[in-house]
Amino acid sequence: MAVYTDVSDLALRDFLADYGLGKLLAYKGIAEGVENSNYLLHVEAGFFILTLYEKRVNADDLPFFLGLMEHLSARGLVCPQPVKTREGSLFKPLAGRPAAIVTFLEGVSTRAPLVAHCAALGTALAELHRAGTDFPLERANSLSISGWPPLLMQARDRADSVEPGLAAFLAAELAALEELWPRNLPRGVIHADLFPDNVLFLGDKVSGLIDFYFACTDFLAYDLAVCLNAWCFEPDFSYNVTKGKALIDAYQRARPLTPLEIIALPILARGAALRFTLTRLVDWLNVPPGALVKPKDPREYVRRLRFHQQATSPGDLGLAF
Amino acid sequence: MAVYTDVSDLALRDFLADYGLGKLLAYKGIAEGVENSNYLLHVEAGFFILTLYEKRVNADDLPFFLGLMEHLSARGLVCPQPVKTREGSLFKPLAGRPAAIVTFLEGVSTRAPLVAHCAALGTALAELHRAGTDFPLERANSLSISGWPPLLMQARDRADSVEPGLAAFLAAELAALEELWPRNLPRGVIHADLFPDNVLFLGDKVSGLIDFYFACTDFLAYDLAVCLNAWCFEPDFSYNVTKGKALIDAYQRARPLTPLEIIALPILARGAALRFTLTRLVDWLNVPPGALVKPKDPREYVRRLRFHQQATSPGDLGLAF
Repeated sequence: MAVYTDVSDLALRDFLADYGLGKLLAYKGIAEGVENSNYLLHVEAGFFILTLYEKRVNADDLPFFLGLMEHLSARGLVCPQPVKTREGSLFKPLAGRPAAIVTFLEGVSTRAPLVAHCAALGTALAELHRAGTDFPLERANSLSISGWPPLLMQARDRADSVEPGLAAFLAAELAALEELWPRNLPRGVIHADLFPDNVLFLGDKVSGLIDFYFACTDFLAYDLAVCLNAWCFEPDFSYNVTKGKALIDAYQRARPLTPLEIIALPILARGAALRFTLTRLVDWLNVPPGALVKPKDPREYVRRLRFHQQATSPGDLGLAF
Repeated sequence: MAVYTDVSDLALRDFLADYGLGKLLAYKGIAEGVENSNYLLHVEAGFFILTLYEKRVNADDLPFFLGLMEHLSARGLVCPQPVKTREGSLFKPLAGRPAAIVTFLEGVSTRAPLVAHCAALGTALAELHRAGTDFPLERANSLSISGWPPLLMQARDRADSVEPGLAAFLAAELAALEELWPRNLPRGVIHADLFPDNVLFLGDKVSGLIDFYFACTDFLAYDLAVCLNAWCFEPDFSYNVTKGKALIDAYQRARPLTPLEIIALPILARGAALRFTLTRLVDWLNVPPGALVKPKDPREYVRRLRFHQQATSPGDLGLAF
């Protein structure tokens, strides 16, 4: 949550002159996303979101991210739809940053997902995977298994300050997953960060998927594994198999898993838990003093990881097979 | 700019049940105001602002602030209009804070006011003063002359770290103003903080006045003095008398100044410059390490103060008399 780059009214009017959106009526910095600066824009054409990409987003990836949102929108998936300039660009500079305008989506994210939310998410995730099949660009997942050793390196020396024995636990886990990680599963565009705050609902229905800035090309079932971790654990870290089953069943109605994907799911879920443990741990150990943004507790993902070490059958996750 | 208090979707839906605004469609934390937490709300009835009052706002003052906005709106002034609960309350608790819903105003604040903006502001300020005459509540201005000595006390020891000799300069200035400060001028409701970021424009026209959380009962002409300081100095700290004249002339067309107010204006402007020097200085000296919000430089107001020490005639401010 932050607005890092300040945009003056004059600079914004200049920027908007290249879009066919009419006059600027209002704009407000919004506290959304930790990576970029976001403004709610009200122009004659309606409400939009203006995003300025800060340093953590590589400008070379913008054609992938924005092109993907455009591609998915064109196939009926509700996600922010980039607005092009009159010359057809998806982004252009504003206040020294690459910036883009996307549509404003209705809906409210839920912090306490119910079974019905998990089912709706499963459908939406499968639709995302199907809509992405013919997207022509590729982007490697820098936070998949080959990205984990450097993260562990960064965190190793101080990991035990978070939980005694954590460094050794994570090193052993990484070694195990390097042995077990699948090599050949159906690949395609994945969201890779579809946590509850990135899914908007109106009632029980998904009204939009947002924040595609971790999207990449990877195993489709890995995306499902990320969601099982993010949506199906209770606040006491117990796995709710009813939610897991609802999510997986709904997913499969729109895109049936292959036998190899079914077998791999427990390992993918374990890997996804390690991935979020590691990134949270690095952030946790590197909070600038006095920062307003509280980092997320890595131990929430250590708990999930311990669950997945035990839950070795797809049935433990709610998968009927 | 900040969202200090986090509001869950469930808590918000509960809160909204007491308002007749229809279903929640979307909400986003917005980076507006340094004192409170603000959310943009989209409900079936339209767009609104939800404000949670943080510690720096005394809950006992809310009937004054919100009642004033309601009073001014009813008299045709465009300012945020509080929405009452079904029981008629202007505010109620949310996430442990008093919270209120007000209307969302169109318009964009300007960072580089032109003469036309100053004139439009003058008219709006006079209309605010006229609309406030029959507002029944009173609130003392804790940041007027009796509030300055405690501020100077807080800043005195370290003031010279900002500018050599500043502590002695401010002490002498305070003593001089205590001698010169007027006793009997027309009083009423003033905004007391009508800086460019609190005035919304569509084109050259004022479309709304916002942020009434310093509003109080004080000399009406003091409000004009605050505006002259905030709107009529150029980035090089030179006073633009054309802007000053435009602001004052427009004000007087809607509410002519009395002879005593005219005579007092240079002293009021000097006092207003001291008030913002002192509050900025205290904030400047008390920034928490690592804070994301950069405090405003008090020296910008020291420069204005030095101008007003020389500009002792109302004509120096652009006032024809």
